[in-house]
Amino acid sequence: MKNFPLSKVYQLLEPGPVVLLTTAHKGHRNVMTMSWHMMVEFGPPLVACVVSDANFSFVALRATRECVIAIPRVKLAPIVVGIGNCSGRDVKKFEKFPLTPLPAKRVAAPLIAECFANLECRVIDTRLTKKFDLFVLEVLTAWSTLSYGAAKTIHHRGYGTFVVDGRTISLKSKMR
Amino acid sequence: MKNFPLSKVYQLLEPGPVVLLTTAHKGHRNVMTMSWHMMVEFGPPLVACVVSDANFSFVALRATRECVIAIPRVKLAPIVVGIGNCSGRDVKKFEKFPLTPLPAKRVAAPLIAECFANLECRVIDTRLTKKFDLFVLEVLTAWSTLSYGAAKTIHHRGYGTFVVDGRTISLKSKMR
Repeated sequence: MKNFPLSKVYQLLEPGPVVLLTTAHKGHRNVMTMSWHMMVEFGPPLVACVVSDANFSFVALRATRECVIAIPRVKLAPIVVGIGNCSGRDVKKFEKFPLTPLPAKRVAAPLIAECFANLECRVIDTRLTKKFDLFVLEVLTAWSTLSYGAAKTIHHRGYGTFVVDGRTISLKSKMR
Repeated sequence: MKNFPLSKVYQLLEPGPVVLLTTAHKGHRNVMTMSWHMMVEFGPPLVACVVSDANFSFVALRATRECVIAIPRVKLAPIVVGIGNCSGRDVKKFEKFPLTPLPAKRVAAPLIAECFANLECRVIDTRLTKKFDLFVLEVLTAWSTLSYGAAKTIHHRGYGTFVVDGRTISLKSKMR
């Protein structure tokens, strides 16, 4: 994985892919599946996400204020669903699932080797955490196996149904 | 358009489609293009979104605390980009673009007839508005031309490049 420009991070998350979120807390590495995230700022890249306090990852994220957002391709979909269907309370997910944790540079949470992009994040705002389980993250460092953002990802439509990225279209835009 | 169950609203937004956001303020109806949104709660459905204070819609949303999120199919992509490339400061968008505003039930902001889903929303939290231009919305009423959520939508990858929904896959999931 190579360094990915922070200025292009929004291109990875703005399309709304299902992602994995890793944490490391008290010697325990965990990973959860997450669809509720959005970009908040281009640069430095800020991301908001909802991690329910029913998720085992919630306590780790709140306590360590660090995580990695890893973006899987469609071929990882069965693993992504498997991860979403069990809890770190019961299962050591990095042992149960064929995912390879790699050391990150700025945070203790691991990168995932099988994901085409990994974003090292720090929690910067928790004002909405108590009421909405909402965290605001800053992306500190980004990694990707691609030089640009495009890879086939999945988007959750509920109940294990996912829509897969199809064709791309380009339209004249002044949008940044 | 028929009433759409509030309990299924997350199925419309969780995949991360580009949406339109309408407002009505001081007799002026406006519409902007938005990609930075996420679900926050299933029921009542809560949505977070970022509306930059550089957008003309920002003042209307903050003042009226109401909006409609309208979800366009891929065939509206050129209009969606056109809307994103101009400002309500300069243009009466509902006159310039072939979109039909319809009266909503609970808010003054209009529905958009050409969109397959319309969500009437009220702002319920502005604690992160000053710092991040982030609003938390409650969806009050939802409408759709479909009995379920699936329609081909677009996802923004930056610079006017969009990925279009492709095939769907279903995997055994315990996810709600």
